[in-house]
Amino acid sequence: MSGSSQAVDISKFSEARRAPQTDHVAAEEPLEIRVAYSTPEGRATRSVSITMRTPGNDAELAAGFLFTESIIHSASDVAAIEACGPAAPDTGHHNVIRVELAADVRVDLGRLQRHFYTTSSCGVCGKTSLDALRAIGVRPVASAARFSIRALTAVPDRLRAAQSTFEQTGGLHAAAAFDPAGQLSVSMEDVGRHNAVDKVIGRLLLDGRIPASECGLVVSGRASFELMQKALVAGVPLLAAVSAPSSLAVSLAREFNMTLVGFLRGETFNIYSGEERLLS
Amino acid sequence: MSGSSQAVDISKFSEARRAPQTDHVAAEEPLEIRVAYSTPEGRATRSVSITMRTPGNDAELAAGFLFTESIIHSASDVAAIEACGPAAPDTGHHNVIRVELAADVRVDLGRLQRHFYTTSSCGVCGKTSLDALRAIGVRPVASAARFSIRALTAVPDRLRAAQSTFEQTGGLHAAAAFDPAGQLSVSMEDVGRHNAVDKVIGRLLLDGRIPASECGLVVSGRASFELMQKALVAGVPLLAAVSAPSSLAVSLAREFNMTLVGFLRGETFNIYSGEERLLS
Repeated sequence: MSGSSQAVDISKFSEARRAPQTDHVAAEEPLEIRVAYSTPEGRATRSVSITMRTPGNDAELAAGFLFTESIIHSASDVAAIEACGPAAPDTGHHNVIRVELAADVRVDLGRLQRHFYTTSSCGVCGKTSLDALRAIGVRPVASAARFSIRALTAVPDRLRAAQSTFEQTGGLHAAAAFDPAGQLSVSMEDVGRHNAVDKVIGRLLLDGRIPASECGLVVSGRASFELMQKALVAGVPLLAAVSAPSSLAVSLAREFNMTLVGFLRGETFNIYSGEERLLS
Repeated sequence: MSGSSQAVDISKFSEARRAPQTDHVAAEEPLEIRVAYSTPEGRATRSVSITMRTPGNDAELAAGFLFTESIIHSASDVAAIEACGPAAPDTGHHNVIRVELAADVRVDLGRLQRHFYTTSSCGVCGKTSLDALRAIGVRPVASAARFSIRALTAVPDRLRAAQSTFEQTGGLHAAAAFDPAGQLSVSMEDVGRHNAVDKVIGRLLLDGRIPASECGLVVSGRASFELMQKALVAGVPLLAAVSAPSSLAVSLAREFNMTLVGFLRGETFNIYSGEERLLS
């Protein structure tokens, strides 16, 4: 049994009758992320997040979360990442992870709790969400990468083939980084789609591949503002979603020079932004 | 054009060629929820959440969020809910909503920021997530409701029929409350599935129908811990998901006397917990 799924006894109802059966469900457990960092008074450790995630690739998830939330800015900010605390008695997973930052890194953990929007003069709207990104220093994507349409349309089948736990449970989101030829370099699964993206970006970060200016990112579901923001912070020029984008995802892509593809299924897809990066 | 979708110009790629087209995408904008409440020093107002949501039914969303996060406990805790601030210049939506609590309501807004888990002796695990619910006074569902299988299997088609914006955009989650005969009483759509559930529960709360001990809740996607928690707080005895549940969703259902149905499609479904509430 993989740690990313659990067997449960169920009743299956089909053809007007019930039958006992064993089903496999996607594992969901909390992960607490702690950050150890320097202060004028010495080292300090603080818990910064508890997220419900599928166990596995927790180091990537922690690194990706801290990076896409703009708490850290490069792989060299991280000195070590280690599981800590006792294993959970019910599943054996370590559900606390500690990210040791390098001695010279100064972090502003307060920004995790402050609202981005409170300094805006125009109230709260989609535009302020984009302005808030600029205010923390996020810049439009600079990338000359081009992706062939043939390569792009091959990506969903490869993503599905990489989703081993989805095949078993039907209950996981997936995300993957792919190159301009459509080959997947990193693929991850999670009950939370933001976590799947954080795991991919965390792996790229730890491998020294950020900004990922030659990478596309594919996600198994929809493209929301949050996912676009994560891809943008990682410098990814193209995000392809198997399902629909939201209005704010489209706005973000257009304002920050990203290519956004939606409904990528078989040989058809929609291009919402950045069409020039797709070559016939 | 409904406020819940936006028209965008795209390129559609199909049959090896591109063509310009107008697409409709699900609207996603931030909503700031402010709470006005009594303190020993007088009335105070505080911003408690900014969530990305699809505009529409914002009062229900705010009420449902505050209730399922256990900040308020009944409809009588709410004196008024009103949109405030200027309309967003780009879309015309009011993206700030103010919930005026009754004069005698004492709230603990600090719990929104405190971690549930810090007092746990066994570290962080699925069990502590369930213990944390008990610690804030959440009790197992008390409901003698029974649902016929024929009624249950009719629900997904009715949910789909109620999803007007999904039909247009392909980009929204849906949730609905239904009665033991399978009739939908409240249905809501949102880019965020937790928001769709909060909108449904908020409507039930404002209508004086909480605890919703005779209601089922159906969701268009997967069943996670978070969605189960919201249904539990509302006293809902049965949650049915069109897609897969997570391991922790199953654990929560079993520990808190809820019926959990997954993969509800056509005439087949899986029963993960509380089978006794389903009658042939």
